[in-house]
Amino acid sequence: MVTPKVIALDAMGGDRAPEIVVAGANIARDRHPEVCFILVGDPTKLATLLKRFPRLASASEVRASETAISAHDRPAQALRQGRRSSMRLAIDAVRNGDAAGVVSAGNTGALMAIAKTVLKTLPGIKRPALAAVLPTVRGESVFLDLGANVECDAENLVQFAVMGALFARHVVGIREPSVGLLNVGSEDVKGHDELRQANEILHAGEFPMDYRGFVEGNDLAAGRVDVIVTDGFTGNIALKAIEGTARLYSEFMRATFRRSIVSKLGYLLARPALNALRNRVDPRRYNGGMCLGVSGVVVKSHGATDAFGFANAIGFAVDMAAHGFNDRVHAEIERWKETRAELPKAAAL
Amino acid sequence: MVTPKVIALDAMGGDRAPEIVVAGANIARDRHPEVCFILVGDPTKLATLLKRFPRLASASEVRASETAISAHDRPAQALRQGRRSSMRLAIDAVRNGDAAGVVSAGNTGALMAIAKTVLKTLPGIKRPALAAVLPTVRGESVFLDLGANVECDAENLVQFAVMGALFARHVVGIREPSVGLLNVGSEDVKGHDELRQANEILHAGEFPMDYRGFVEGNDLAAGRVDVIVTDGFTGNIALKAIEGTARLYSEFMRATFRRSIVSKLGYLLARPALNALRNRVDPRRYNGGMCLGVSGVVVKSHGATDAFGFANAIGFAVDMAAHGFNDRVHAEIERWKETRAELPKAAAL
Repeated sequence: MVTPKVIALDAMGGDRAPEIVVAGANIARDRHPEVCFILVGDPTKLATLLKRFPRLASASEVRASETAISAHDRPAQALRQGRRSSMRLAIDAVRNGDAAGVVSAGNTGALMAIAKTVLKTLPGIKRPALAAVLPTVRGESVFLDLGANVECDAENLVQFAVMGALFARHVVGIREPSVGLLNVGSEDVKGHDELRQANEILHAGEFPMDYRGFVEGNDLAAGRVDVIVTDGFTGNIALKAIEGTARLYSEFMRATFRRSIVSKLGYLLARPALNALRNRVDPRRYNGGMCLGVSGVVVKSHGATDAFGFANAIGFAVDMAAHGFNDRVHAEIERWKETRAELPKAAAL
Repeated sequence: MVTPKVIALDAMGGDRAPEIVVAGANIARDRHPEVCFILVGDPTKLATLLKRFPRLASASEVRASETAISAHDRPAQALRQGRRSSMRLAIDAVRNGDAAGVVSAGNTGALMAIAKTVLKTLPGIKRPALAAVLPTVRGESVFLDLGANVECDAENLVQFAVMGALFARHVVGIREPSVGLLNVGSEDVKGHDELRQANEILHAGEFPMDYRGFVEGNDLAAGRVDVIVTDGFTGNIALKAIEGTARLYSEFMRATFRRSIVSKLGYLLARPALNALRNRVDPRRYNGGMCLGVSGVVVKSHGATDAFGFANAIGFAVDMAAHGFNDRVHAEIERWKETRAELPKAAAL
């Protein structure tokens, strides 16, 4: 494990950029003192902000961008017109070998499109996927695709399973990650054709993973498996449904403790325990959409996060680079291609 | 509003049948003293159980079934081989006019298939959908389809929107329900073709509803609209993801209060408020999957619910029958057909 030297940051992406990007980099710098940053954005604004953080300033290079991609830009538009944007130049830094990874809190569609175009997908990978780590009853699970691909075929889903398992093992640190395909029931006959086909391929065991078959929506929070694979439409909606429910519970809880003086006192007594709980489920701790399958480390931060959340997204990028995640995916796909060449044609995807 | 006289109950469906069905009917009987029941199941077991509830016994007719459909039976198998099953005979009671509605905690797929075959879909409705009421920040929302149709076209989604809006208005009691289509983003360009097409039809305003366009997964718990429409695959996974997250939070909360003697004391002080919260989000209160679009009132109870939950499912059936829900759907579809006949061809579905 070699800690990467440089991470490029899209300093102008997100609701509160560049402030939270710089403040987040400062937190990340304390956690990973050997990492330096390329901050891409408005040089005047960045210079002012960096004055507050002299140690970060000494470990950062500022690169000037001319534009910023907005939340409303369509991916194709961002690709064509955003060549001098902070997002594009930060991704270019990875392509040029100046940085080991990039983090952006900007437009997700634009980030995926630019990353795919500039960095290309890994050899053998048909489509990249967006993955996140979620808190579960048992610990943490990896969930993908979260919206990169509205429609997926069986091959996409199988590749997502392979990438998700490698991410869980090498980045999250789960030794033998179990993998499941999200469906409306756990029987093999349920769901779309693509799902049933992917299920068959994964059951056939060509990929060395602990494949457990179909899992259901409630298994996400239960942590029944370590990696849950689905298409980007379902994944995006399920993830947001979970986030919304978590917020609903937090709001209900706050209102509950405010109901009476006695319940307020109860809150004060239970506060240390409640703070530990809040920390356990803090969405900022899980902030980071990993763009798996592109030739480069690309992490999407939530657009509305704060410095603490942005620092966690940087942490994911540092870990992916440090563990050579992309090399491992590449090696696995190559190994599988060789095995597959020896298999009868029917077993091929 | 005329309270229905008779509700048929599949007394052998669900994890703890017939016990919780009979105990649930007893609770429902107290809430709706004018309702009688047809209990379909094993007559010996039912006779023994009814001895405990003399008032319910005096308001119940027992019908003997020969078999029960298991949770693992496939719908086609249940249809062919289950003609003397408790589920089938309970649905037959609705078709024969003996009961105003039916409630079953049995196999969902079998229930939908038998209900469609025996009762038929309402004239003009292409496919029935499964709907539920969910707690939200703002109150309650109606969510459908929850799994009846793994794949849906634009016409299905539009009809679900119409039925969901009528359910929200006449059964839940929301005067001018707002309606949204679940998607991965709120812009009109997002999502599948079927979704975009349904969005156009609903925006065109042929149906008198407060249509708000696309909504996202987090809008489910936020209650941004009163009715959220999606296909059965996405709906099933989103619903279960929400249920799983709610359970995760409850478990985390219990563990939190057990952390120390002081936090236990805090719990004791806040208990009345916490109990009110538990009641607010109690899944048993929302137990009931309404099978909208069949010619008859059919409600699916969760298989693992208790008597309190089953009584709530009965309550939904009573309300749907009392408010003439199916007549309202039928009238709305007829009205629309007439309007549509006057429209240029291009505007048709």
